[in-house]
Amino acid sequence: MGQFNLIKTPTIMLNEDQVRANIEKMAKKAFTQGIRFRPHFKTHQSAEIGGWFKENNVDAITVSSVRMAQYFAKNGWEDITIAFPVNLREIEEIRELSYQIKLGLLVDHWEVAKVLAQDKAVRTDVWIKIDTGMIRAGVDWQNKQQQLELARLIQESTHLRFRGLLTHAGQTYHAESPLEIQALYKQSVERINLCRKFLSSEINSFIEVSVGDTPGCWLADELGDVDEVRPGNFIFFDAMMFRLGVCSMRDISLCVACPVISKYETRNEVLVLGGSVHLSKEAVENCQPPMYGYAVMSPANSDWQIEETNYIRSLSQEHGIVRLDPETFKQIQIGDLVHVIPAHSCLVVSALGEYLTTDGKYIKADVIV
Amino acid sequence: MGQFNLIKTPTIMLNEDQVRANIEKMAKKAFTQGIRFRPHFKTHQSAEIGGWFKENNVDAITVSSVRMAQYFAKNGWEDITIAFPVNLREIEEIRELSYQIKLGLLVDHWEVAKVLAQDKAVRTDVWIKIDTGMIRAGVDWQNKQQQLELARLIQESTHLRFRGLLTHAGQTYHAESPLEIQALYKQSVERINLCRKFLSSEINSFIEVSVGDTPGCWLADELGDVDEVRPGNFIFFDAMMFRLGVCSMRDISLCVACPVISKYETRNEVLVLGGSVHLSKEAVENCQPPMYGYAVMSPANSDWQIEETNYIRSLSQEHGIVRLDPETFKQIQIGDLVHVIPAHSCLVVSALGEYLTTDGKYIKADVIV
Repeated sequence: MGQFNLIKTPTIMLNEDQVRANIEKMAKKAFTQGIRFRPHFKTHQSAEIGGWFKENNVDAITVSSVRMAQYFAKNGWEDITIAFPVNLREIEEIRELSYQIKLGLLVDHWEVAKVLAQDKAVRTDVWIKIDTGMIRAGVDWQNKQQQLELARLIQESTHLRFRGLLTHAGQTYHAESPLEIQALYKQSVERINLCRKFLSSEINSFIEVSVGDTPGCWLADELGDVDEVRPGNFIFFDAMMFRLGVCSMRDISLCVACPVISKYETRNEVLVLGGSVHLSKEAVENCQPPMYGYAVMSPANSDWQIEETNYIRSLSQEHGIVRLDPETFKQIQIGDLVHVIPAHSCLVVSALGEYLTTDGKYIKADVIV
Repeated sequence: MGQFNLIKTPTIMLNEDQVRANIEKMAKKAFTQGIRFRPHFKTHQSAEIGGWFKENNVDAITVSSVRMAQYFAKNGWEDITIAFPVNLREIEEIRELSYQIKLGLLVDHWEVAKVLAQDKAVRTDVWIKIDTGMIRAGVDWQNKQQQLELARLIQESTHLRFRGLLTHAGQTYHAESPLEIQALYKQSVERINLCRKFLSSEINSFIEVSVGDTPGCWLADELGDVDEVRPGNFIFFDAMMFRLGVCSMRDISLCVACPVISKYETRNEVLVLGGSVHLSKEAVENCQPPMYGYAVMSPANSDWQIEETNYIRSLSQEHGIVRLDPETFKQIQIGDLVHVIPAHSCLVVSALGEYLTTDGKYIKADVIV
């Protein structure tokens, strides 16, 4: 294919068929269990790939910033949750969006809830963000009093609709086995349902539950007592997900083609153009010394082979140092492409902003940080 | 200042006076020692900031990619070294550039040198990249035979000029004290001069030596037996450089203003909009658990105070979790800005692509990855 010979700098390569298969599988799982599928679009940040979800009857989506919500609203999406607590500095943009689409917001602090409750120009759904064990953002799942205060504040306002409870059980990313991931997913669903039960006994409102992480949603056979799921990463997967045991090699649909610049015979390492500005400096969890992705020799597709011996040992701004087994090292030539399965595909998309499919088609991502 | 109230999302804030002072100090050190100052422009990637170097009589620069060379060539720079080994997939662009400006290339592998030596359309200076101990790219400083082969290949060609030996002693980033940095700098200069001495005895050519890292070049009083220095990061500095003892608080000229989104009273932590897509996932060296930057409360300038107790504990795509001492935690309000001194300023520039100076002026960086 001409396009692949034209690759001069690090380029995301996408297996469209596999992306579509992953979308279909997740959508089917959710829909057959009667659960809304509200995929996280921060993973691909592309109107075109968004369209592939539409073909699977998806009409509600998740994003992680106001700007991303604006972008997808402009591209025809009418039901968007911004799964990042409200940034009061963007309140004007939020007001505007709330008139254009069905907008969902997250709160986890009464000060912010108070501002929203007093601002009649904000007409949105509001979710209370619950921390079910990740210790990042959200009201601690055990702090019932805080949850109740927030729920009342929202419910008593004339222009907000209290929608329910939302969590991202990102603790699954630190699990050591698929079994542990499944257990953490279940625990997180149980915890958020305890919150729902308590609030239901205190306020008169239907309360939904929304959960999110790819590891849990992909591995759980039964999604359990939830109203919607919001995974994002599963459309591409990456080295992190592979090593966690979440996905198989076949499930991975994305890699980054990086030109081979030099070879270092004494250490079986090659230099590629592909550094932290392209691949991000995110390392795969639980690897010591740090490891930034796998190197595979065949391009993005079904028949590639991940070998634990072929990986990115170090990254600086433009330099990627790839360690290889002696046999692979011998085969690879300067000027070839190494295909990197990055630690975290979402960050690669954010850095590179464009895809080249295995069919030779370019797809744009509209990244606005 | 109106502009600062208008900050809605993570924004680089720059103290222009301090940037200019840093440039002046480094330029003066090099020039008074009779050494060429060829600053690395990957740090700022901005034509406008490049102009501040011109005011200090700088006319030769370093970049890290062909695209960056094209950008600065378009902006009037006529003497550019691409301090990344030649990417053969960009040979057409290199040929073209070699007719427009005085271009310097790096080689560290005979296959690449051979291609260049046979391609008469490439009319450039060529440096041999030497690895003086970083173990990333370059010919091992002890491998004299390889150096000689490369030098001969280049020298015998009709269209290439063998310019000399170049190293980046990035091992200084892993040092544990300023004294160790100075020792590593000295060692690196000694090692590359041993290579020069050997080559001088074998081939009839004037051989220059070029060295590069900010820690070494900033801390060494005597730059030693070198012909040019190529530091880049020193114009901004960052948390890495501060913690290494390379710079003082006053020397730091860059921070990232991040909106405070929420507060978590039980753990003295705040959530900021400022994640790995803004700050990069690079952590400060030698910190366990990982630490991604310092949080300061006053904006970019002289009177800010770095406290080891106020830092970024975790980063995900848009989430930054900032741990604070109890007093600071109490003072800070939702909607305020936290000023983050990032782990690595170069990567922040690459991610955000724009500066706001403390005088309220916007400066563009033209980032092309």
